Amino acid sequence: MRERGARRVAVEDPAWSAIPDTVTQAGLEPVAIPVDENGLQIHELEHNDLDAVVLSPAHQYPTGAVLTPARRAELIAWARRRGALIVEDDYDAEYRYDREPIASLQGLAPDCVAYVGSGSKTLAPGLRLGWLLVPSHLVGELGAQHAITRAMPSVLTQAAYASLLERGEIDRHLRRTRRRYHARRDILIDALERWLPEARVGGASAGLHLMAWLPDDADEGAISDAAISRGVAIHTLHRDCTVVGPRPPALLLGYGLIAEQAIPRAVCELAHAAAL
Amino acid sequence: MRERGARRVAVEDPAWSAIPDTVTQAGLEPVAIPVDENGLQIHELEHNDLDAVVLSPAHQYPTGAVLTPARRAELIAWARRRGALIVEDDYDAEYRYDREPIASLQGLAPDCVAYVGSGSKTLAPGLRLGWLLVPSHLVGELGAQHAITRAMPSVLTQAAYASLLERGEIDRHLRRTRRRYHARRDILIDALERWLPEARVGGASAGLHLMAWLPDDADEGAISDAAISRGVAIHTLHRDCTVVGPRPPALLLGYGLIAEQAIPRAVCELAHAAAL
Repeated sequence: MRERGARRVAVEDPAWSAIPDTVTQAGLEPVAIPVDENGLQIHELEHNDLDAVVLSPAHQYPTGAVLTPARRAELIAWARRRGALIVEDDYDAEYRYDREPIASLQGLAPDCVAYVGSGSKTLAPGLRLGWLLVPSHLVGELGAQHAITRAMPSVLTQAAYASLLERGEIDRHLRRTRRRYHARRDILIDALERWLPEARVGGASAGLHLMAWLPDDADEGAISDAAISRGVAIHTLHRDCTVVGPRPPALLLGYGLIAEQAIPRAVCELAHAAAL
Repeated sequence: MRERGARRVAVEDPAWSAIPDTVTQAGLEPVAIPVDENGLQIHELEHNDLDAVVLSPAHQYPTGAVLTPARRAELIAWARRRGALIVEDDYDAEYRYDREPIASLQGLAPDCVAYVGSGSKTLAPGLRLGWLLVPSHLVGELGAQHAITRAMPSVLTQAAYASLLERGEIDRHLRRTRRRYHARRDILIDALERWLPEARVGGASAGLHLMAWLPDDADEGAISDAAISRGVAIHTLHRDCTVVGPRPPALLLGYGLIAEQAIPRAVCELAHAAAL
């Protein structure tokens, strides 16, 4: 993108830090655009002289917001008008618990959306398995750039994944894990209501983490440190994400690796940590 | 390196094209320095305003030259005087057939050499397994840069490799494959002497390929095309490498994947292709 003359790339605020950091590393300027409960505030893209936008429309990281249908249409119209590229970070859309997984932006606008998928949430981040679907006019150039460093997943991993896909094992795995993570999420929310009622759970019923907003005077860092000393490791909004605008403190609670029966005890310890 | 203010990076001429292309992709300027039968012409590094040099001292790609001990000392003295970084591309030093594998530059000068190793030649390029040893003052910064993209080998591959190393299986594998590739190389050289006597084999007895220099009037591209139509795929110097200064035509003949008994027939077909 830099070689094609791009300069400014919109990123979500708050964001998974790797996104603005990657934009900066590529020699481009990340421009923070706020996220609300309906996802990225698309109208803020105007008048910002942007060449692209990177967002996680199916389940915004970290807030868990889902981009509304109206905003999706508005985003695509903006990109087409502007000739801008939409980079769709679809990191966990396979896990939606209250309805069918949401369709990708890429399917709506393959001419202006670069779709980024991953096996990190469905199988394991250690596989380092990911994929891109880019607008056809970018395929040649992207392939040429990629051929230089050849940074790609192990061919063994790719072949194993292809075989699992073909045999329907990935679909079976998703059905199994969807039930498992959904149950963990429900238990986590119940435990939060019981032990940490001052926390307000945000975002859609989806993914492998939830965001618990705290009262304005809570001290995220102190809670996280106290939780660690009680054997509970958590992320927090301001410590582990890139946050530009003012936001209340919040905890990021992952349930991808914890056993169901361990959740209530962990939340109880967390509540003790939050009481300090 | 670019962020630290580096601008010009010496690369070998001729070179594996991925090296100058990677330098360019990083926003730096590759400066071609000629290679002769004693490796990179170190005295040419002076007066070129260089911040770094990338070279393959154990077995230069593609020529197969080995950097002499005198030039190694000269290179390290230059880098220390200049405050420049030496990037040592040690892609196949495990395979040396006429003597023990040559020691790395990194072992001689860990303060100014970044060592790049790989499992691509010893196991398989499809593993996408590689490693870096950098001067200790660069470790923190390199780690921070690397943490952004997290482009790294599969954790499964890393764990498997570590286990093979610990159990001595990599050493046993190297002893086995060294014998196998040495035998293939000898058969290839015999076949060239018999069928293609006008070709002059260059470089050390090492690695998984050899370079066969041709008479000045030979047409590399036509030979390669004719060989393909006879079922023999080869690389050539000017078609598949980055060559800046004047060089005679040459063929790059790999023996990493061909069975011993297939070599004479392949060279015979190649000789027919060269006769056109």
